[in-house]
Amino acid sequence: MSAYNAPLDDMFFALTKIANIDKLSKVTGNTDINSESVKLLIEEASKFAKEKLDNINIEGDSKGIKLENGLVRMPESFISSYKSFVESGWFTVAGQKQFGGQDFPWSVLVCINEIWESANMSFAVNNMLTQGAIELIQEHGDKTQKNLYLPNLISGKYSGTMNLTEPHAGSDLSDLKTKAEIKNGKYLIKGTKIYITHGDQDMSENIIHMVLAKLPDAPEGNRGISLFLVPKYYNDEEGNKIKNDIKVISVEHKLGHNASPTCVLSFGENNECVGEIIGQPHDGLKAMFTMMNNARLNVGIQGVAIAERSYQRALSFARERKQGFSFNKGKKERVNIIEHPDVKRMLLEMKSQIEAMRGLAIFTAEAIDYSNKLSNLDERKEYLNLSSLLTPIVKAWCTDQSVIITSLGIQVHGGMGFIEDTGAAQYFRDSRILPIYEGTNGIQALDLLRRKLPLDGGKTFEKLLEKIKKTALDCKKSDLKEIITMGNLLDEATTSLENSAAWLKEELNKNPDNAAAGATPFLNMFGWILGGWIMCNSSLKIINKNSELADKFSNEKINTSLFFCTTYLPTASSLMSTIIYSHKSLSAIN
Amino acid sequence: MSAYNAPLDDMFFALTKIANIDKLSKVTGNTDINSESVKLLIEEASKFAKEKLDNINIEGDSKGIKLENGLVRMPESFISSYKSFVESGWFTVAGQKQFGGQDFPWSVLVCINEIWESANMSFAVNNMLTQGAIELIQEHGDKTQKNLYLPNLISGKYSGTMNLTEPHAGSDLSDLKTKAEIKNGKYLIKGTKIYITHGDQDMSENIIHMVLAKLPDAPEGNRGISLFLVPKYYNDEEGNKIKNDIKVISVEHKLGHNASPTCVLSFGENNECVGEIIGQPHDGLKAMFTMMNNARLNVGIQGVAIAERSYQRALSFARERKQGFSFNKGKKERVNIIEHPDVKRMLLEMKSQIEAMRGLAIFTAEAIDYSNKLSNLDERKEYLNLSSLLTPIVKAWCTDQSVIITSLGIQVHGGMGFIEDTGAAQYFRDSRILPIYEGTNGIQALDLLRRKLPLDGGKTFEKLLEKIKKTALDCKKSDLKEIITMGNLLDEATTSLENSAAWLKEELNKNPDNAAAGATPFLNMFGWILGGWIMCNSSLKIINKNSELADKFSNEKINTSLFFCTTYLPTASSLMSTIIYSHKSLSAIN
Repeated sequence: MSAYNAPLDDMFFALTKIANIDKLSKVTGNTDINSESVKLLIEEASKFAKEKLDNINIEGDSKGIKLENGLVRMPESFISSYKSFVESGWFTVAGQKQFGGQDFPWSVLVCINEIWESANMSFAVNNMLTQGAIELIQEHGDKTQKNLYLPNLISGKYSGTMNLTEPHAGSDLSDLKTKAEIKNGKYLIKGTKIYITHGDQDMSENIIHMVLAKLPDAPEGNRGISLFLVPKYYNDEEGNKIKNDIKVISVEHKLGHNASPTCVLSFGENNECVGEIIGQPHDGLKAMFTMMNNARLNVGIQGVAIAERSYQRALSFARERKQGFSFNKGKKERVNIIEHPDVKRMLLEMKSQIEAMRGLAIFTAEAIDYSNKLSNLDERKEYLNLSSLLTPIVKAWCTDQSVIITSLGIQVHGGMGFIEDTGAAQYFRDSRILPIYEGTNGIQALDLLRRKLPLDGGKTFEKLLEKIKKTALDCKKSDLKEIITMGNLLDEATTSLENSAAWLKEELNKNPDNAAAGATPFLNMFGWILGGWIMCNSSLKIINKNSELADKFSNEKINTSLFFCTTYLPTASSLMSTIIYSHKSLSAIN
Repeated sequence: MSAYNAPLDDMFFALTKIANIDKLSKVTGNTDINSESVKLLIEEASKFAKEKLDNINIEGDSKGIKLENGLVRMPESFISSYKSFVESGWFTVAGQKQFGGQDFPWSVLVCINEIWESANMSFAVNNMLTQGAIELIQEHGDKTQKNLYLPNLISGKYSGTMNLTEPHAGSDLSDLKTKAEIKNGKYLIKGTKIYITHGDQDMSENIIHMVLAKLPDAPEGNRGISLFLVPKYYNDEEGNKIKNDIKVISVEHKLGHNASPTCVLSFGENNECVGEIIGQPHDGLKAMFTMMNNARLNVGIQGVAIAERSYQRALSFARERKQGFSFNKGKKERVNIIEHPDVKRMLLEMKSQIEAMRGLAIFTAEAIDYSNKLSNLDERKEYLNLSSLLTPIVKAWCTDQSVIITSLGIQVHGGMGFIEDTGAAQYFRDSRILPIYEGTNGIQALDLLRRKLPLDGGKTFEKLLEKIKKTALDCKKSDLKEIITMGNLLDEATTSLENSAAWLKEELNKNPDNAAAGATPFLNMFGWILGGWIMCNSSLKIINKNSELADKFSNEKINTSLFFCTTYLPTASSLMSTIIYSHKSLSAIN
C-alpha cells in the first residue's frame, strides 16, 4: 500500500525558484510568510493529510454518503477528520485577519490545497468551496454580513456552497429560473438547483449557500442575475434557530467523488426560504465571476493533486512488483517492474507533467498575489491580466492531463489497476469531473480565445511570449547540451504558438466559428509550451546555482525537464495544424 | 436516451473498399460469403444487438453479478438474452462447418464482434472467449476432444474461458505455479488462477476452462508450460455427470465490466480436478499464443466498439441538448450544443478515430483470412506476417484511443456525463481494461519492436511502408486540394516512421533498453499513420468512384479523413522526438 507524502521538495522548489516567496513577502510587507515559515507549514499539512485524510479516502469512496430523512449523512470518519481539521486551524489559512483568518498568499494556498486534494478530494472540495464563499463575502458582502458569517466560515464552523446550475441551465446561466422576491422586507428564494457539491452534510454546524436567482424586475440574460446568501439555519428576530426552507431532493450517483455529496436542492417549497442579497441587485454574476477565476485555479490544482496521488501509488507499486526479466543486462533474477524502460517512461510521463503543472499553477498564484497586494495600481493591473490569461490554461490543461495521468497510474498496475481494492482506479474516476466543473474545458478554451488573448490590446499575451522567448534564448546559450536541446524545442514551439495566435486573432474577426474550432487545441498547445517554459526555467535555476548537479533532486529535475521538452514540445508545435484545419471538416458532424 | 444502431454504412464501406469481401470470397472459394449476404448478416446482428443486448447493458452494470454458495449468478436478463443468442445461432458464426459452425472469415467476424461489444461488453466477452477456446481446440485438440467439445462450444451450449494469470504471474507466465500430474491415467490439476473472465456463470450448460499448468517433469521457463482443458462438468465412465473440483473463491470488484464475472478459481482443492491435455506436454504456451494473436485483434475491436457506442450516445445527446447561443450568426435562439464548433470538434475526434480504427482492424482481419485460406503457401506466409505485424498495433492503438474517446464521450455531456444514470460513464469505465488485458499495451509495443518489425528480415515492414508511400503519392496527384493536403501529411509522417524504425533497429542491437524506452511512442506513431493511410485510401476510393461527392456518406468521409490527417498525422510525426530521446531521462525514475 502507498501512503501519501506531500512532494515537499518540488513544492518548495517551485515556491522559491519558480515563484519567489521571500521577494513576495518583502514586497507585500507580509514578512511572517517566508520560505522558512512556509516550509514548516507545508510539512505540517503533509502530516495532517497523511494521518487524517489520505487514510480515510478509500473508505469514503467505497461507503459513500447516505441520504436519510432529507439529510445527508457523511461517513463517520469524515465527521471526525473534519473536527480535527477545524481544531488544527487549517480552515483559517484563507480569509482576512480581522475575521480570524491568516490571509496566506495564493502561492502558499495552492500548495496547501494541493495537499488536501491529493489526500482526499471528496473531503477537500468542501474546504475549496468554503474558500470561495469567504472570498465572495469579503469582496461583495456588507459589514453586517461580514461580521455575521466570515468568522464562522473562516474557522470552519460553517461551510459554504455554490448554487449556479439548474437542470436546463448548465454552462448557460442566462436562462436561470430560480426566483427571488421581497416580502415583508425579506428576500424569499424559490427554485431548484442541481450539482450542489456538499449541498448538505453533517460535518459543519451550518451551511451557507451562495445562490444565483432572478428578481422580478430583472432584465433578460446575464445582466439580470442576483446573488443571495441562503443559510441552512438562521436565527429569527427572537434569536430562535430556524431551519431554512431548503430540501435535499436527491443525491447523485456519480462516477467518482463518492464521499462528496452532490445534491439536488429545492429552495422555498413552502415559500419560506429566506436569503440575503450579496452586492447589488442584478449584479450577481459579476460577483460570482470575481470569485470564479480563483476557483478555476483551484480546480487546476485539483488536477495536479489527483495526478500526484496517482503517481505516488503507481511509483510505490512499480518499486515492489516483481515481474519479468531485464532484457538488457542478462540478469537472471526477476526484476521489479520499475526496471522496465516502458514502465519508467510511463512514470516519467506522470512525473514530468505533474512538475510542470505544479510550477505553472504556483507561478499563476504568485501573479494573483501581486495583483492583490502591490501598491502600484498599474502593476497590479498588469499582474491581474497575467493571472487572468493563465487561469483558463491552468484549469483546462492541468485537468485534461490529470485524466490521462491517472489513466497511466492504472496502466502501471496492470490487471490490478482495474480492481477497485487497489485504489488506483478511484483517482481515475475522481479526476474525470475536473475537466467539466467550474466551466467546462471547452468554455475555458473559448474564454482564452475571446477574452484573455485580447487583454490589454493583446499586450498581456505578447509580454508573456517575450518571457518565454527569453528563456529559450538563455537555454540555447547554456553549456549543457540537454539544456540547449530544450531551448531549441521551446523556441520552435513558441513560434508555432505565435503563428497560431495570429491566425486565431484574424479568424476571430472574420469567421469566429473557425477560430472557435481551434480554441481547444490552442489551449492545449499553450499549456504544454508554458509547461516547457516552466521546466526550462527550472533547469536554468538549477544550473546557475549548482553547475555540478550534485544532488539527486537537481539531477532528476534536469532529466525530467529534458523528458518533458523532448516529449511534449514537438507535439505542442504539431497542434498548429489542428488549430487551423479543424473548422474545414466540421460539416461531417450534423 | 440513445439506442444502439450498428454503423452499417461504415462497416460495409470498410468491408468492400478497405477490404474486398467479394474478392476474398472468390479467392477462397467460399462464395456464400459475399457483399450481399454479409450486408444482410450485419443488419440482422444490429437488430439483435439493439433489442436483446444494448437494452440490458445499463441494468447489468448497475446490478452486477452475485456469488452465491460458490456459484456466480448472472442478472436474469443476461440469462434470457444468452438463450436468445444461442437460439438465433449467433454463436455458430465462428467454428468449422463439420462441427456445426458457419466458418465466417475474420473480416466478417470482426464486424459482428464489434456489434456485440458495442451493445454489451460484459455479455459479449463471453462469446469472445468461447471463440478463443474453439480456435484452440480446432488447432490443437485431438479428434476425440474435437468431437466431444466443439459442437457444444460452437452452438453456445457450452462456453469457454482462458486461465493464464496467477497472483504472482501476470505478464510473466514463465513463473506459473499451477501443477498438473498424472494419476490413474488422468491429469489432475492443482492451483489458483486469477482474473478469469466468465470463470463461472449460469448462462451456459457447461464451462470449458483452458488452463496453463506445469507437469512434474517440466523444464524451467516458458518451455515448461502445458495446456489443459478442464470442464466445469464432465461425465464419468458410467456416464454420470460429475461437478469437477473447481471452486470460485471470489469475484473481483472492478472499475467496469460489472456484469462480467472476473473470478479467482481454485482448481483441485480436493485433489480431484480432472483435466485433459491439449496438444503436446510443455508446448501449451505456443498453442495459447496461436490463439492469442486473434484474441488480440478481438480486443482491438472491443476498443473500436466501446468508442463507437460512446460516440453514438454523445452524438444523440448533443443533438438534443439546448445550451447557449451561436456566437457567429447572431441567432437569437438557443441552439443544440452540436451547433457549437468545439462540440463538433470533439465529436469529430471521436468519429474520425473510430473510422480509422475500424478500417485498420478489418484490413488486418482480411490479412488473417488470406493467411488461412490461400492455396499458395508463400502468399499465406506473407499475409500471416502482415497480420502479425499489424495485430499489436490494432490491439494497443485502438484500446489506448478507446479510453480517450470514451472520455470525450463524457465531456460532450458536460455535468451529466459524470452522473452514472446518463450511461456515458460506463463506457469510460468499461474501456479501461482494454489496454491491460490480453497483454498490456506496453507488451504489445515490445512485441512490435522485438518480434514484428524484424519479421521476414524486416521485409514485412518495408512492404507495408511501400504501400503507405504509394497511397501518399496517389493522394498528392489528386485534383482535390483536401486530398493533396492529406497526401503531403501522410508522406511526411511516413518519413518519420521510417527514420524512427531505423533508429530503433540500430539501438535494439546496441542498447536494447534505449529502444525499449521508445517502443510505446513508436507503436502510437505507427497506429496513427496506419489510421491516416486507411483514411487516405478511403478518400481515394470515394473520389475514384464518384468525383462529385454526391452523397452524404462520401462528403462526410472526405471531411472526416481530412480532419484525421490534419489532426493526428503531424502529432504522429512529432513522436519521433519522444522515441529517440526517452531513454536519456529514465534515470529520473528510481
